[in-house]
Amino acid sequence: MTQPAFGAMSEVINFLMEIDKLKLVERRTKIIGHGRQENSAEHSWHFAVAAMSLAPFAPQNVDISRVVQMALLHDIVEIDVGDVLVYDLAARLAVAGKEAAAAERLFGLLPEPQNSQFLQLWQEYETGDSVDARFAGALDRILPILQNLHNEGQSWRENGISLEQVLTRNALVGESWPELWQHVVSHLHSAQEKGWLR
Amino acid sequence: MTQPAFGAMSEVINFLMEIDKLKLVERRTKIIGHGRQENSAEHSWHFAVAAMSLAPFAPQNVDISRVVQMALLHDIVEIDVGDVLVYDLAARLAVAGKEAAAAERLFGLLPEPQNSQFLQLWQEYETGDSVDARFAGALDRILPILQNLHNEGQSWRENGISLEQVLTRNALVGESWPELWQHVVSHLHSAQEKGWLR
Repeated sequence: MTQPAFGAMSEVINFLMEIDKLKLVERRTKIIGHGRQENSAEHSWHFAVAAMSLAPFAPQNVDISRVVQMALLHDIVEIDVGDVLVYDLAARLAVAGKEAAAAERLFGLLPEPQNSQFLQLWQEYETGDSVDARFAGALDRILPILQNLHNEGQSWRENGISLEQVLTRNALVGESWPELWQHVVSHLHSAQEKGWLR
Repeated sequence: MTQPAFGAMSEVINFLMEIDKLKLVERRTKIIGHGRQENSAEHSWHFAVAAMSLAPFAPQNVDISRVVQMALLHDIVEIDVGDVLVYDLAARLAVAGKEAAAAERLFGLLPEPQNSQFLQLWQEYETGDSVDARFAGALDRILPILQNLHNEGQSWRENGISLEQVLTRNALVGESWPELWQHVVSHLHSAQEKGWLR
């Protein structure tokens, strides 16, 4: 179908219609108390609201407005690549180059300055190359852990994840956010006792 | 189930787990080229990215960071109230008081300053009482119109919506954003010719 034209806004609107597809990318985490898997679009919304809501507890020099933007953009590459489980290290490594190409293609649908700005924000997030990116990365890791703690360890149980894996793969959260991490670690041990984690 | 405690962050985390429910609130609009209805959480993500992406075309004194925050919060009240079709004027009026009570309950789960800040942003959005709120309101209206224009008028056809209704109910978009509205009006007339609108 020919895309309807919107003058100087046409490219932006084509981008916005293309990213509708993120609503179809499924994650392993399910809605709390519900059988449906969440998708990467609604996860991105949840992550962005978490950044706004936890702002008073963020490290002092974090720019929450930039963290919110990273949250909104961070998973758009999954339209081309799909969601890869954070605990599947081999798959995560294999997909890195494809994600970079997807970022070029998808943000490349936009005119400047948005094209470069979005690509730069996504790269900064991916490399963890700033306090904003590290805080965003910690939030993205902590959110599914919180969802699991409130949902009887659903995605841990379904994917055979161990306490050791959660502690090792998310050690970075402890570095950038020790105040929250100490509570999480205590709940993770209880979760293992309940059989939610191997 | 008792909620796990997270020290000073406990209330915020309870709020974040409560709003997981927004992922279960269905709208009339379906994913483009797909049979599934979108939900209010993924719509809120789409709306926020639209604000970021269309920033260069926004009126000069709009603060996009505030518009993004309004987008992320604007539908959270639907957790208690559900989504009401924008063309169902009687239902929209009937639900206004319930939405205000829902905002008090849901944002009230948060400690200060987030409680007051979020409530104020939501009220500003609802009343359209600033350039930011009017731009946000226009974006929220334009997004499902764009989705329908790219999806053979799906939700218009399914709900028997007329060209007249779309033009009348969204006249405010023309006021706050004439540059975009003139393109939309032209496509709406074509949509009617194709039978997508009564």
